[in-house]
Amino acid sequence: MEGEIKAHYIDHISIAVKDLDKAVKEYETYFGWKVAGRYTDPDENLKVAYFQVGPTAYELMEDLDGTGEVAKFIERRGEGIMLVAFNVDSCADALKQLKERGAKMIDEVPRLSKELNRHFGFIHPKSTGGVLAEVIEGKY
Amino acid sequence: MEGEIKAHYIDHISIAVKDLDKAVKEYETYFGWKVAGRYTDPDENLKVAYFQVGPTAYELMEDLDGTGEVAKFIERRGEGIMLVAFNVDSCADALKQLKERGAKMIDEVPRLSKELNRHFGFIHPKSTGGVLAEVIEGKY
Repeated sequence: MEGEIKAHYIDHISIAVKDLDKAVKEYETYFGWKVAGRYTDPDENLKVAYFQVGPTAYELMEDLDGTGEVAKFIERRGEGIMLVAFNVDSCADALKQLKERGAKMIDEVPRLSKELNRHFGFIHPKSTGGVLAEVIEGKY
Repeated sequence: MEGEIKAHYIDHISIAVKDLDKAVKEYETYFGWKVAGRYTDPDENLKVAYFQVGPTAYELMEDLDGTGEVAKFIERRGEGIMLVAFNVDSCADALKQLKERGAKMIDEVPRLSKELNRHFGFIHPKSTGGVLAEVIEGKY
């Protein structure tokens, strides 16, 4: 329980958008950036394109069919920044420690992104100043 | 106009909270993190405490008197992530290029944070998938 849950860097920031191609085009046009990667995650019901900004993936996410969390977020709050993910050594250890320290959890055990082969999990915004915060291990 | 507006890293992510001390305590308690710095910015009507996560400052912001942009954001959308700032070599150049490339701007010339002695400016969320995006030069 002593010590910190070391977050090495912001692993990714994820932006909920209605139209992924349109949003990608905006960043390409205005910033001159190039997409670093794309993936589709059927489990989370979303497709993603991301730009690399230093160590952080700046992700644009579109809901696959309007029934997932991204669509719900947009309905509730409009397009915008949906979540921040911290890169940790062990997602399972981080989730366990967060729970032991009294944080309200969305996940107590890691989820696995099959596309990325990375474990991740969410803390509830009630425990983090309204932020949907994620802990994730590994790299893109 | 060719080339990119190079963002070296995410300079900071800023979270709008109602009660700064309470939010700081949450991150201290659950993550075991220590505050890396604090400042008050009367021009922007806010006070800030931040944690350092890799190269990125993870900022918690409270409105000074309930009349500023942070308070308005919370009224409209609730507590949560309000903005993302990209570290660039020159804020003035970045704002100029963004405008020339057709981005809708909040700022066409840099603002100066007297507390941090850093120049920064905002792009309108309409041009960035709903994100209040900032470009900023220098370091904390």
